[in-house]
Amino acid sequence: MSACEFESLEESLESHLPEAELSEVKRILFGKETQKLDLPSCAVSAASERDFELKGFRFEAAQEQLRPPRRVRVGLIQNRIVLPTDAPILDQINAMHSRVGEMVEVAAMCGVNIVCFQETWSESTNLYVCRSATLCFAAVLAKKYNMVVVSPILEREGLHSTLWNTAVVISNSGHVLGKSRKNHIPRIGDFNESTYYMEGDTGHTVFQTQFGNIAVNICYGRHHPLNWLMYSMNGAEIIFNPSATVGALSEPMWSIEARNAAIAHHCFTCAINRVGTEHFKSEFTSGDGKKAHHDFGHFYGSSYAAAPDGSRSPGLSRTRDGLLVVEMDLNLNRQISDKWSFKMTGRYSEYAEELTKSVRPGFKPNIVKE
Amino acid sequence: MSACEFESLEESLESHLPEAELSEVKRILFGKETQKLDLPSCAVSAASERDFELKGFRFEAAQEQLRPPRRVRVGLIQNRIVLPTDAPILDQINAMHSRVGEMVEVAAMCGVNIVCFQETWSESTNLYVCRSATLCFAAVLAKKYNMVVVSPILEREGLHSTLWNTAVVISNSGHVLGKSRKNHIPRIGDFNESTYYMEGDTGHTVFQTQFGNIAVNICYGRHHPLNWLMYSMNGAEIIFNPSATVGALSEPMWSIEARNAAIAHHCFTCAINRVGTEHFKSEFTSGDGKKAHHDFGHFYGSSYAAAPDGSRSPGLSRTRDGLLVVEMDLNLNRQISDKWSFKMTGRYSEYAEELTKSVRPGFKPNIVKE
Repeated sequence: MSACEFESLEESLESHLPEAELSEVKRILFGKETQKLDLPSCAVSAASERDFELKGFRFEAAQEQLRPPRRVRVGLIQNRIVLPTDAPILDQINAMHSRVGEMVEVAAMCGVNIVCFQETWSESTNLYVCRSATLCFAAVLAKKYNMVVVSPILEREGLHSTLWNTAVVISNSGHVLGKSRKNHIPRIGDFNESTYYMEGDTGHTVFQTQFGNIAVNICYGRHHPLNWLMYSMNGAEIIFNPSATVGALSEPMWSIEARNAAIAHHCFTCAINRVGTEHFKSEFTSGDGKKAHHDFGHFYGSSYAAAPDGSRSPGLSRTRDGLLVVEMDLNLNRQISDKWSFKMTGRYSEYAEELTKSVRPGFKPNIVKE
Repeated sequence: MSACEFESLEESLESHLPEAELSEVKRILFGKETQKLDLPSCAVSAASERDFELKGFRFEAAQEQLRPPRRVRVGLIQNRIVLPTDAPILDQINAMHSRVGEMVEVAAMCGVNIVCFQETWSESTNLYVCRSATLCFAAVLAKKYNMVVVSPILEREGLHSTLWNTAVVISNSGHVLGKSRKNHIPRIGDFNESTYYMEGDTGHTVFQTQFGNIAVNICYGRHHPLNWLMYSMNGAEIIFNPSATVGALSEPMWSIEARNAAIAHHCFTCAINRVGTEHFKSEFTSGDGKKAHHDFGHFYGSSYAAAPDGSRSPGLSRTRDGLLVVEMDLNLNRQISDKWSFKMTGRYSEYAEELTKSVRPGFKPNIVKE
């Protein structure tokens, strides 16, 4: 079985493990079982007609005496490109708009309040074109469906023609709330993005929306624990991680990093990855010993959400377009913080000092020798 | 099936999944397959006679032209207490010495260079007694077997009679290299350790041994990303995480945190947890709604090692005493760093500034509102 064909970890476990063991395996792997969310039948049949996976889960919190629940529905959309990468650019983009548009419509049927697309969602991974049309498209959706839209785009800044890998956050009013640029740029084999992006300069902005405080940690930034930390220090309740990453490279890390951040920072995290293999007319190689080739490999989807209590939702498929609807009660963040106290016990002042010392020229690491 | 009986995730997967799917499931869950390490038959039969699990795995690195391999064998020992918790204290400690001693002997047969025991290994979890005998015992083992010993103890400091949760690092010469105190103290239900330990004051010391630079992040410190970071900033190549934690509390997080640290910091990490349920004569409750009770719950073992390439070894049993022997080529750290570049792209200076600002009184989080 090739890595492209394998549908999902969850499906394999469900199909083969005896019931009693399955529940233990799932507890160890995924934590407290995420309840299934009932989705309206119109949404279920629309997803089926439009040929994408639709799954819904619910992270619950305890009922409190002084605060009402803060239930938010988040939609994570993963998709493959629609047209071949050598089709006319405008056709490609329009086809993506149309595809994602019909998925967002289903998200709206499911009562989604905040939707997040994958990294540079309106482009194939070799299309270095930012279309303001994409921004308008997302703003129209936001207003139409009363939905916050996190729209990761490729941004060209006018003055110096700098290219940024950016997520635009659009309020449910349809207005642009602001943007968050990718803070860490990979230089890994074919993903040598430093040749066309600069490191983000927007710091760790958090966006206060009607449905909660959100932040966006784009793709490679998930490997950097300080990146998650600072979004959390600025008050993020949900951190999105829109990505585009392939199986041979990162798959065993995928389930670890966003989830670790949810645990460490008492917040929710959402990891979104595209699907499919994208073929390019021009061959390329990063001189890493592989022959020149026409694709990056298989984008493995597997989008999921992680909760502060260490649990996570099952993932979407590794191969199909999909919409994951996750209802989360944001009260869980403080409830878990009150239980585990990682922030209270964080000793941040001491770390600020220690880290500051460690980045000064001439820093001598604290190494004891015999 | 109760959580105490379930033997291990790995065993369940191996028993029930068809071969083709099993290899995909293992790749996604554990990364590149860790090769089995051939262990001498005398060790295998000694482990069997002494009734503990013995497993060996090897993390390999590529052959380099300018550096020879730096292969180190690490031994992780997990064990239950031997005598009941109301047996005379000296008997309990002697029984633990004897048990761990026979396990270390097998580690020596397997060529182990560095051995690490579980948190406060010579005591049951309610025995607040530090025995200098434990230190002497560990030093004798170190010298006898030419082995670095990481010995987590309960330390009583003379001057103020302060209690610390400490790991003593003993060189293979038999001399004490130094100690590392637990930096973060939990206040979680029954694990209200703040009533008897103080937060460590030894910072993030790294110990240069003949076999590599090592550090010790004790138990609850694994939940704190900055803690792992600073051990790494000081040059740790292997970070040990000796723990004592129970299934109902932390099991779904167990496979996440040490592994996340290995990935993020291009180093090896080793997570060690005790096994069994310890019954205490005096009942206790932390007023969390549970009735007064006589145990913490089931310590679930599952000790494992994680590598910088995102892979990890299978875990030891959830229920049995065990010795995990892991051979790691420390050259892998730099090889993976050269591939993934998380440190090079870490922007640590900027984080030092940002973190410093965020801990000042009056800090205003960077929140954008409509």
